[in-house]
Amino acid sequence: MFEKIALVGIGLIGSSLARVIRREGLTSHIAIATRSPETLKRAEELGLGDSYSTGAAEAVKDADLVIVSVPVGSSGAVAEEIAPALKPGAILTDVGSTKGSVIAQMKPHLPEGVHFIPGHPLAGTEKSGPDAGFAELFENRWCILTPLPGTDPEAQEKLSEFWRRCGSNIDTMDPEHHDMVLAIVSHLPHIIAYNIVGTADDLATVTKSEVIKYSASGFRDFTRIAASDPTMWRDVCLHNKDAILEMLARFSEDLASLQRAIRWGDGEKLFDLFTRTRAIRRSIIEAGQEIDAPDFGRQVVAHPEKLAKG
Amino acid sequence: MFEKIALVGIGLIGSSLARVIRREGLTSHIAIATRSPETLKRAEELGLGDSYSTGAAEAVKDADLVIVSVPVGSSGAVAEEIAPALKPGAILTDVGSTKGSVIAQMKPHLPEGVHFIPGHPLAGTEKSGPDAGFAELFENRWCILTPLPGTDPEAQEKLSEFWRRCGSNIDTMDPEHHDMVLAIVSHLPHIIAYNIVGTADDLATVTKSEVIKYSASGFRDFTRIAASDPTMWRDVCLHNKDAILEMLARFSEDLASLQRAIRWGDGEKLFDLFTRTRAIRRSIIEAGQEIDAPDFGRQVVAHPEKLAKG
Repeated sequence: MFEKIALVGIGLIGSSLARVIRREGLTSHIAIATRSPETLKRAEELGLGDSYSTGAAEAVKDADLVIVSVPVGSSGAVAEEIAPALKPGAILTDVGSTKGSVIAQMKPHLPEGVHFIPGHPLAGTEKSGPDAGFAELFENRWCILTPLPGTDPEAQEKLSEFWRRCGSNIDTMDPEHHDMVLAIVSHLPHIIAYNIVGTADDLATVTKSEVIKYSASGFRDFTRIAASDPTMWRDVCLHNKDAILEMLARFSEDLASLQRAIRWGDGEKLFDLFTRTRAIRRSIIEAGQEIDAPDFGRQVVAHPEKLAKG
Repeated sequence: MFEKIALVGIGLIGSSLARVIRREGLTSHIAIATRSPETLKRAEELGLGDSYSTGAAEAVKDADLVIVSVPVGSSGAVAEEIAPALKPGAILTDVGSTKGSVIAQMKPHLPEGVHFIPGHPLAGTEKSGPDAGFAELFENRWCILTPLPGTDPEAQEKLSEFWRRCGSNIDTMDPEHHDMVLAIVSHLPHIIAYNIVGTADDLATVTKSEVIKYSASGFRDFTRIAASDPTMWRDVCLHNKDAILEMLARFSEDLASLQRAIRWGDGEKLFDLFTRTRAIRRSIIEAGQEIDAPDFGRQVVAHPEKLAKG
């Protein structure tokens, strides 16, 4: 599809891209750049690319497709660094979890003739770094593009086809709406998970060893996303502030109302909410965005011999 | 181990007990009671027991071990019903998620000579009903007993051995401490999950179909426990009110502080919290209370062929 693809950043997303690009044969040259010499060395040991450098400008030279996969707070610095080296006609995209802020940071640096099409693959795990990536990460996940006015339709279609070849489904929306949608489906859940794990960690009446021992009764579900990359999530919080504060306000309002129902013993109200929320999971499973196995399939993983039996 | 075991309630927990009791040969007679004729019929179709009745008193007659697995709000009514039929010397236990309230409801009805030892296996999934149970549910999970003062040590050891044969590890603590521990490791996570799913469901700026489509970015983790049995969780909220309100207050206080850090762009504070919470998941995995596969092993379940490859 492309003569040369440059991956700036080779963490979970970048290294998953490297693997799926190779598997699908989407280019003859993968150039990898990361500022960290240790990470670069590891990427090379894993054989993720065809050339390696700590300088992003060097990697993007002659690339037809450049994918920036760095914490969103670093987008501006990366754009400034690579701008002079970008090939005219190249497609430049990113994978950041916030779009308004990334556009504001990157756009001013970019030369005419480069197709800048911001994007966000909704895929990830709680692991980070080049070892954590895998080629199937994007399979059946949504990739949202937030093209700017005047974007070349051909370049946009080419980028869409790239993501489809990686296994993704494509949606487009404007950056503001993206940031609002992600605030509720991703940013708020992460912030709440971080918060509840922090609250549990701080308790004096219940010891930390009790929290750990008895975590299977619910708590451990929250620890997965609260184990996500701290730098990435700090940047998300700082760069999608308005939408996140709006969602936090709604969440807290609802929680105050639920708390009041508990205090006053309003069983009917509790039952209504607890019934309504059950249906949503069913819809997510039906939409192919969640597995149907109970307990996220933990039993299946713990007892793989059962899979063989069917 | 026992001549006859009576299971009052045959939902997820009761039916898992029936299966593991059979597998381990812990009795020669399993008597099953549930008020619902449909559920009883289903239990019979599944062959979970040796005798079936809609009357709990009939089932507990001559039983050496009686396990009450009903929503905690029904504990008192069950105790009143079975009390006259309990065999002297029988062990009576329950599996309720709150202990103070269950003791307060059941104790007054019970005759002398019955060994009432409240218990709580910390095990479950988001599914409910007799079809949802499985024999491995209690494996490597903790079962907390909250024996009352003066409990017969022999009866307590016999019940502990029963749970060990079901695969569980045993801990004992006093009922008040149990209720405080469970408020943070289980009740608060459930309430928060129900609340966030409710908040997302109510939004006008983001459609429900968007919430469902893009849920893999974090939200879907919360929908699992928000799909738990509404009756059970209504009762938990009503019957562990004080401890839950205490934990909710701490959670909200911490969230207000986190919200302020987001509003004022305090990246250092965010980074510190997000780093601290990562370590807790590692401890939970090391304690054998969580699997180590990324994303709860969803990839493994989606690609079982990889398991074969090792």
